[in-house]
Amino acid sequence: MIRFECDYNEGAHERILQRLMETNMEQTSGYGTDAHCERARTLIRQACGNEEADVHFLVGGTQTNTTVIASILRPHQGVIAAVSGHIAVHETGAIEATGHKVLTVPSPDGKITAAQVKAVYDAHVQESSPEHSVQPGMVYISQPTENGTMYSKAELEAIYEVSRACGLPFFIDGARLGYALASTECDMTLADVARLCDVFYIGGTKIGALMGEAVVILNDALKRDFRYIIKQKGGLLAKGRLLGIQFETLFEDGLYLEISKHAVDMAVKIHDTLEQHGVQFLYSSPTNQQFPILPDSLLEQLSNQYTFTFWEKVDASRSAVRFCTSWATRVENVDALTNDIIRLLHEKQTQDEIAANRIEVLV
Amino acid sequence: MIRFECDYNEGAHERILQRLMETNMEQTSGYGTDAHCERARTLIRQACGNEEADVHFLVGGTQTNTTVIASILRPHQGVIAAVSGHIAVHETGAIEATGHKVLTVPSPDGKITAAQVKAVYDAHVQESSPEHSVQPGMVYISQPTENGTMYSKAELEAIYEVSRACGLPFFIDGARLGYALASTECDMTLADVARLCDVFYIGGTKIGALMGEAVVILNDALKRDFRYIIKQKGGLLAKGRLLGIQFETLFEDGLYLEISKHAVDMAVKIHDTLEQHGVQFLYSSPTNQQFPILPDSLLEQLSNQYTFTFWEKVDASRSAVRFCTSWATRVENVDALTNDIIRLLHEKQTQDEIAANRIEVLV
Amino acid sequence: MIRFECDYNEGAHERILQRLMETNMEQTSGYGTDAHCERARTLIRQACGNEEADVHFLVGGTQTNTTVIASILRPHQGVIAAVSGHIAVHETGAIEATGHKVLTVPSPDGKITAAQVKAVYDAHVQESSPEHSVQPGMVYISQPTENGTMYSKAELEAIYEVSRACGLPFFIDGARLGYALASTECDMTLADVARLCDVFYIGGTKIGALMGEAVVILNDALKRDFRYIIKQKGGLLAKGRLLGIQFETLFEDGLYLEISKHAVDMAVKIHDTLEQHGVQFLYSSPTNQQFPILPDSLLEQLSNQYTFTFWEKVDASRSAVRFCTSWATRVENVDALTNDIIRLLHEKQTQDEIAANRIEVLV
Amino acid sequence: MIRFECDYNEGAHERILQRLMETNMEQTSGYGTDAHCERARTLIRQACGNEEADVHFLVGGTQTNTTVIASILRPHQGVIAAVSGHIAVHETGAIEATGHKVLTVPSPDGKITAAQVKAVYDAHVQESSPEHSVQPGMVYISQPTENGTMYSKAELEAIYEVSRACGLPFFIDGARLGYALASTECDMTLADVARLCDVFYIGGTKIGALMGEAVVILNDALKRDFRYIIKQKGGLLAKGRLLGIQFETLFEDGLYLEISKHAVDMAVKIHDTLEQHGVQFLYSSPTNQQFPILPDSLLEQLSNQYTFTFWEKVDASRSAVRFCTSWATRVENVDALTNDIIRLLHEKQTQDEIAANRIEVLV
Repeated sequence: MIRFECDYNEGAHERILQRLMETNMEQTSGYGTDAHCERARTLIRQACGNEEADVHFLVGGTQTNTTVIASILRPHQGVIAAVSGHIAVHETGAIEATGHKVLTVPSPDGKITAAQVKAVYDAHVQESSPEHSVQPGMVYISQPTENGTMYSKAELEAIYEVSRACGLPFFIDGARLGYALASTECDMTLADVARLCDVFYIGGTKIGALMGEAVVILNDALKRDFRYIIKQKGGLLAKGRLLGIQFETLFEDGLYLEISKHAVDMAVKIHDTLEQHGVQFLYSSPTNQQFPILPDSLLEQLSNQYTFTFWEKVDASRSAVRFCTSWATRVENVDALTNDIIRLLHEKQTQDEIAANRIEVLV
Repeated sequence: MIRFECDYNEGAHERILQRLMETNMEQTSGYGTDAHCERARTLIRQACGNEEADVHFLVGGTQTNTTVIASILRPHQGVIAAVSGHIAVHETGAIEATGHKVLTVPSPDGKITAAQVKAVYDAHVQESSPEHSVQPGMVYISQPTENGTMYSKAELEAIYEVSRACGLPFFIDGARLGYALASTECDMTLADVARLCDVFYIGGTKIGALMGEAVVILNDALKRDFRYIIKQKGGLLAKGRLLGIQFETLFEDGLYLEISKHAVDMAVKIHDTLEQHGVQFLYSSPTNQQFPILPDSLLEQLSNQYTFTFWEKVDASRSAVRFCTSWATRVENVDALTNDIIRLLHEKQTQDEIAANRIEVLV
Repeated sequence: MIRFECDYNEGAHERILQRLMETNMEQTSGYGTDAHCERARTLIRQACGNEEADVHFLVGGTQTNTTVIASILRPHQGVIAAVSGHIAVHETGAIEATGHKVLTVPSPDGKITAAQVKAVYDAHVQESSPEHSVQPGMVYISQPTENGTMYSKAELEAIYEVSRACGLPFFIDGARLGYALASTECDMTLADVARLCDVFYIGGTKIGALMGEAVVILNDALKRDFRYIIKQKGGLLAKGRLLGIQFETLFEDGLYLEISKHAVDMAVKIHDTLEQHGVQFLYSSPTNQQFPILPDSLLEQLSNQYTFTFWEKVDASRSAVRFCTSWATRVENVDALTNDIIRLLHEKQTQDEIAANRIEVLV
Repeated sequence: MIRFECDYNEGAHERILQRLMETNMEQTSGYGTDAHCERARTLIRQACGNEEADVHFLVGGTQTNTTVIASILRPHQGVIAAVSGHIAVHETGAIEATGHKVLTVPSPDGKITAAQVKAVYDAHVQESSPEHSVQPGMVYISQPTENGTMYSKAELEAIYEVSRACGLPFFIDGARLGYALASTECDMTLADVARLCDVFYIGGTKIGALMGEAVVILNDALKRDFRYIIKQKGGLLAKGRLLGIQFETLFEDGLYLEISKHAVDMAVKIHDTLEQHGVQFLYSSPTNQQFPILPDSLLEQLSNQYTFTFWEKVDASRSAVRFCTSWATRVENVDALTNDIIRLLHEKQTQDEIAANRIEVLV
């Protein structure tokens, strides 16, 4: 079985494992106070072009989203997000479990707009008794989105500007941030991201690390006591060095973007190959997730050899599915996948034609 | 600097790292549904002598305590624990953050008794309006305790019996469980632990793993939907295989107890050596944490070369400190530590005698 | 100013005030343990045709919804409700504040269907990894709804049947229950309501009482320790007798339905009078809330003498507004309101015709 | 049965009921936006000598404590309180239910000291890893305390000064505030209270009102969005006027202090009468709660005619009990109570002497 159903099917990049081996018997202090974490923080601050940023390392995405959001909101506030946002649908109510409503806005492709943020804010303050409903308290997006789509720099600037005008901290979930930054269609750098929000995180779990997410807090007002919240939410790893060593490796000579680029290249290869053979896509994704629309009959055959994610029915006979690539995806697996799809499409076409002819003959 | 301030100063046991290397490019499904996790679950069930147990892997101790407790209690219930229990003092209110009070009982040495559990329960049900106070909903202990002390089998049996009689699920925090089981004073096996509570966990972070805790649920009534709670609390590791591989390694041929025994041996060595030189101890600990009482002046000197934890002032000139050993502790470091302490004690004694003589002379 | 913007503009029915005066210096025990509460419970059980029901008195609607829902759900569960449900939009996230997501379903008129409940449940259990999303844990509706609409007995039966089949407790918010039961279109009794759900409440605040809601728990599994949850959520009134006395008065000789009927009669009068003059309505409401669609220009004039609630823009020149009647609404005020609306409509029509003619002339 | 077990055994002061009757059919807007609430706010601000104070009306004590505390603390913070504080023991974990730990300090008589607050604060900031434990976030006391004792002005000043120095908002629970202010031993006015804390509340439920507590927020930083929190916690009464009318009545010409004084007079009468007959008291209370120590045998007889609260066993044959007086306590009931106690004490003494003599004779 060849796996494309997610971007965390393998362990870690070999250089990370190598570094873990080399440092294994070093004795360090716990909870992220060691020299590896300190160096990783410095490297990330440099990459972000912000020497004042606070950098914290957590273990996973849901944990990170919960911790960041709980640290920002007062009890009566909620977080604005796309209806398809990870916090809205894939975290078993982790945000609600800390007492906060996710204020969802419609989104055809995973992205939200500055105008939507403004509209939610305006609608609330214009209520006759606003205290009867949840107050918008911050804005959440992911870059790239759950649908592989990507915000442009201008779009981020617009959301950030509106958010600031409304007094809403702007938080970017970067679980797959590298896969956006490495996209050929991307018009921003990590430093741009760091300039265009109040807090964001750089995902490691899906990009080369065993696990780990690096939260970068830009807004001074959000920095206070963040470690308390991490600890309370169960995210303060005893052997914090493990996260430090991994991010040190990812950020010391460009490994993070280098392996991100590989994933995107593999995704583009899938996309372009299939598109050349007439396959349509549900979303226009320039990142590591691709959502081709394929005949249901083909999917059954394909699933004997490949794993992928069913996304949604598109019409009576076709569905969109998701293929993820990652830093670990092998080109030979991509070739096998696309070849098999194309072959199955041809076979199906031939059968359909035969069937159509038979029907003609019968008629 | 030689470190004794905690039992998570190093990375992981080399066999674990080796196994992570070997399996690194295997493609597996996520969130603990892979074959390594499955095998680790089987090995743990066997070690527990309970084929029906549910086994789940989480990342850290605070996360595990929060998840287990939140999964059991109804909103108006609290958890009975020692006043010095980890959940009562070292988790930044993680239990309260899920809505529950920690109902503390006094404890001179970290342990609580069946009689205390019964007393809390009885006091509550005998209140004239019990609904005005938090209802005891479960019992929490750690084995060994935060003070290195250990419950006997008879003590566990008594607590479990009272807990069942009162309808209170009994949860054992085993963050350092191996260090109890490997103690020469221990009169129970892992299977005994599994027979004497409703749910417990086997700590990996402090015993050989990079990170990881294995929750073992014995009571059927507590099994339902536990994965939802893990996910909501941020504990469902995407690359769950990392935990499976580690526990597989720890439990496939006795590694867990073997390395636990090393830690205890090292601790006993510290204890016996110091005791032979007249050092007193704050707690009578047969496990990997030792709490000698030392002159404050000596501690300052000692801290130039060793890390350890200040525990509490004992009198005007002496304090108790904590030294932890672990699976990774080197015997030469233990020897260096005890030799240095003994040397410093002698030097101090000599100085004290000289000072005393001077005073005599002056008088 | 004559008020129609809500159904809690006055104090209490005079018989309630009278009874409060008569009993004022009686000495009773606190927190609802007094004889008045006991008698009120008995009367409500009788009216519900269920001697085994648990009856509890709380102060307000949001408090009651929060308390009931928090008492039922486990941490990973949410409550299914209409997107316009009171708990979804008018309670400042009170449900989320207890850790639970409101799982909203679309609703054009405030009602949801058994099919929608089934669909939410099925969609969840059919997910490949259901533990990544909130588990539906109960069903919430209000009877009548926020839009004045009403479920038929057959509709309630269908929802209750599906809910039981899915293991979802079914909760009916009856903040305005009397105004449904007293409607001429209503095909159910209070005993029917009590037979067709697991728990519901009978609203007093909006129907004759100073304040107060009576929760009726039918399902034995939901009865345990409910008073603890009331107390924790701040709803256990010290002078619980105040609620007992009020519900005693409302239920001892049919007062509750009698005054509810008056409110509905007044609402029907508004509806029929306006409809006869060509006014359209946003919802088809047979209860005490009416939602006529009126010209925006008229609303401004009307608001000089009457209060009402702006509901939504319907088109460029018209909006729907809400008029509420209650047990306290005076027929002369209803007549004044409808007369003024009709007069203003005529004046506007005349002006419009003149304007139209002018335009014709100009043309 | 004559009741002394609490201070909420009757309805409301007759002038309050009278005013509710007079205003009953007035039409007002909801949720505390009416003219009665506005006037009550003005009267309270005047009585507090602070024109800038925010005043909000809630229904009950637990609700008020929960709402105030939840509005102030960030997730990782707890509230310092006496171990016997109402929030620590009598609210079913309401504070924990909003995510916060109650950080209790020992107290022999219900009071805490500035030095204790300082010590908790210092101990926390001096921890080596403070983020592993709950951060003190505010200070809670009640004036008078649960034990009837009272803070002096100097004591309040000291706590407030320390609290400000530590950045901890200082909150005074005034559920029985009048009973402190009306005490002959009280050296402060309502304006002093308002000057010596950040937020407090004036209890109505126990002092003349049907129900109701008036929160007074002095510190500007705590004022923002408080109504949202009230609503979310279920405390925003639809017919808010009920609270406004009651506090208007209590504060328009000194009624609050006048009836408080009556309660204290009655309590002092109980105290002085019993003390003259040799009765000892558990606490030295100058307010409306008295805690005499009486023979257990006597208590049984007394309970046939009077209700009171068992407090604690004092020795093998005696217990402390609590008698509460209130605005509604009748002097003839106080006389009956004290006469009966004195008679029973004499009877017991006589019997004891006879028994002693018998034993002498027998010897």
